[in-house]
Amino acid sequence: MNTGTAKRSTKSPHEWTALEIVNAISDGRVSRETVVRSCLERIASREPHVLAWEHLDAQHAIAQARALDRSGSSAALQGVPFGVKDIIDTEDMPTEYGSPIYAGHRPARDAACVALTRRAGGILLGKTVTAEFAVMHPGKTRNPLDATRTPGGSSSGSAAAVADYMVPLALGTQTTGSTIKPASFCGVFGYRPTFGDIRCSGVMESSGSCDTVGLYARTVEDISLHRDILVGRAPEALPETTVAPRIGFCRTPQWPRLDPSNQHLLEEAASRLAMAGAKVTNVDLPPDFARAEEEHKLLSSYEFALNFADEIDHHWNQLSPTLRDGKIKVGRECSYERYRAACEFAQHCRAALSRVFEQYDVLLAAAAVGEAPVGMYTGDSSLCSSWTLMHVPTMSIPVFKGPNGLPVGAQVLAKSNDDRNLFAVARWIYQRLT
Amino acid sequence: MNTGTAKRSTKSPHEWTALEIVNAISDGRVSRETVVRSCLERIASREPHVLAWEHLDAQHAIAQARALDRSGSSAALQGVPFGVKDIIDTEDMPTEYGSPIYAGHRPARDAACVALTRRAGGILLGKTVTAEFAVMHPGKTRNPLDATRTPGGSSSGSAAAVADYMVPLALGTQTTGSTIKPASFCGVFGYRPTFGDIRCSGVMESSGSCDTVGLYARTVEDISLHRDILVGRAPEALPETTVAPRIGFCRTPQWPRLDPSNQHLLEEAASRLAMAGAKVTNVDLPPDFARAEEEHKLLSSYEFALNFADEIDHHWNQLSPTLRDGKIKVGRECSYERYRAACEFAQHCRAALSRVFEQYDVLLAAAAVGEAPVGMYTGDSSLCSSWTLMHVPTMSIPVFKGPNGLPVGAQVLAKSNDDRNLFAVARWIYQRLT
Repeated sequence: MNTGTAKRSTKSPHEWTALEIVNAISDGRVSRETVVRSCLERIASREPHVLAWEHLDAQHAIAQARALDRSGSSAALQGVPFGVKDIIDTEDMPTEYGSPIYAGHRPARDAACVALTRRAGGILLGKTVTAEFAVMHPGKTRNPLDATRTPGGSSSGSAAAVADYMVPLALGTQTTGSTIKPASFCGVFGYRPTFGDIRCSGVMESSGSCDTVGLYARTVEDISLHRDILVGRAPEALPETTVAPRIGFCRTPQWPRLDPSNQHLLEEAASRLAMAGAKVTNVDLPPDFARAEEEHKLLSSYEFALNFADEIDHHWNQLSPTLRDGKIKVGRECSYERYRAACEFAQHCRAALSRVFEQYDVLLAAAAVGEAPVGMYTGDSSLCSSWTLMHVPTMSIPVFKGPNGLPVGAQVLAKSNDDRNLFAVARWIYQRLT
Repeated sequence: MNTGTAKRSTKSPHEWTALEIVNAISDGRVSRETVVRSCLERIASREPHVLAWEHLDAQHAIAQARALDRSGSSAALQGVPFGVKDIIDTEDMPTEYGSPIYAGHRPARDAACVALTRRAGGILLGKTVTAEFAVMHPGKTRNPLDATRTPGGSSSGSAAAVADYMVPLALGTQTTGSTIKPASFCGVFGYRPTFGDIRCSGVMESSGSCDTVGLYARTVEDISLHRDILVGRAPEALPETTVAPRIGFCRTPQWPRLDPSNQHLLEEAASRLAMAGAKVTNVDLPPDFARAEEEHKLLSSYEFALNFADEIDHHWNQLSPTLRDGKIKVGRECSYERYRAACEFAQHCRAALSRVFEQYDVLLAAAAVGEAPVGMYTGDSSLCSSWTLMHVPTMSIPVFKGPNGLPVGAQVLAKSNDDRNLFAVARWIYQRLT
């Protein structure tokens, strides 16, 4: 506690975690307005370099903070500022889905995840940059650690804003690797929940069989707090991991695509965790899993092409060539029967994976092929898409530095609906690798 | 074929099925404008009694029909008029979700199911009345067969419009019994697909774990055609059922709640189907199924209360007491842990039901407790909610007349993703009971 107080005194509020903000406001050590202004000042100084925000409403945020300061709410987030990916509807801000088709669009209501965060006292600062319709065509955001590199996508702005200390919490989404990959590239915690656990109402559907909301923060505890709020649980501290966890080290069929440096980092991490007391064993997934990446691509593209029938038929010229020649083309060339086969495959693999998890608390895997690449390409999602199809909860934890000194995440996965155990073990791993 | 032509010549276009319209337009026997005008004339004469429509745009519909007549589209629906439940977004018409909160609301895009029906040549006449947020608080629609009675809900207007020959096709939704029950009360075919098979993008989410789009038509063949379009299949005629089907007669734990007259109709139907050659046997569901109705209620209410956080927090006084004291109260009083238990229960029962289906092509069950009740109460959904939770495809077929001469449906169910077989067997059953 003393340590916490001492650390806080040397940091500005924009550098605090969500829990530190909650505690400081609860204790009367800071006003919500001070916290919000600190974040806004950080954004003012850094946004020209990072370009994380599609829409920012400083005066509105300050007004909300003042109102909360006056009313003295005791909700769980107290007044924590947050950002929202611009694929998620907000009642009081434009929502443009990363597409010129929706320039200036104003939804009629908040998405469930936004309304619930606000109910808990979250103060929405603005909308963060998304790739077009949360797929691949990038927005303007740069990696805050190296402006020549991508922050990853599609939740580009949310990951960058949290990494750059603009907000302690941000909402993203994941259909392929859109939460985990940017977390890895920007050096923050990114969490993709068990499929179906956080309501997607008000989030533009990309592929209903794969979409989830995703969360960003700079600590596991903040992720856990935000997740409790979104699923409707009373916030509860994570249990301590007292027994060393059983970790399955899983190279996955995509292993050869990893940068050798990242292979080395993961191998070394597995050894260090074993030395720290974890029971670490190599896991070979059932052979079928080699097909999961391709099946995910067909399934998600098929659903996307149906979901975007309106845009395809009436706004074709406003869709990016990346989207038209990629996801839409794949989706339209896939037959219904082939799509159904992909759905059946996914169900079969989910059952097989749940049997794998009988022997492990978590699996440890790569989150990305390596550091964020130079350029605006949102990066290779192949380390994420198979897991996404499996519906299991997953987290990227910022534990590595690549050859250029840039962050690389490790991906930690648990069985479906074991999200709190995932958090507890991810924290155990994080503490031992950093 | 001669019979078909002869029958067509004695009927007005608004009385035709979707397939009859498609054939007549394809053959050049009628223009799309003539068909649309016939439906609009029917609506003009009957709407004061039925009140099926929340929004109707006659001039817009005629303009679309003329444009299609000029362009000579050869898409599968050619120019078939259709209606859309006002819980489903439309780009060119208001979408009010049955709530004063959204009076005059204009969505930015068509829901996927609307855009795909239009792509296939469907002509949207207007938006049909829905209960508030597709739950229970009724809209203005009356049963077209007896104006003192409910059409059922929540897809009230879509079922009534199809039953009253205003449109041959209409879109609804089902989270509890919102497609099947109105189909039974109004005497039309209502179809609730395998969960997840028809994209819900652009349909306001009630409970993401239970919601599906629902379809209405006056023949099985029309339902099958519309379903092919919505899932992205090339339209294909149904296979003939050459082998007599294996039918499980399933009284379900709700049997004692049925009107005795409806019990009698179902018993008699089972006997007649057996005499017609079907292998009919009684099915007792595993004992757990007795809990499915209550588990569905908790699960769907929990998700609803999260999804409608915005309305609960900012528009409480504009929500109906029915909704506030019903679904929202139940949802808010349910803990996350209890909700998760309901999810686990549902998964367990789905697996058990798939084993039951190893012995049957379809199950035969009640669609409603009896005829549509007098008054506006949308009716008892307890014959549907357990099946909804099971994610299996189901259809109400209009085969019975109750003690007041009003329609009562039989519910036919198949295993998940066996929707086309469901249609084929439902047709076989329909032909033998009518």
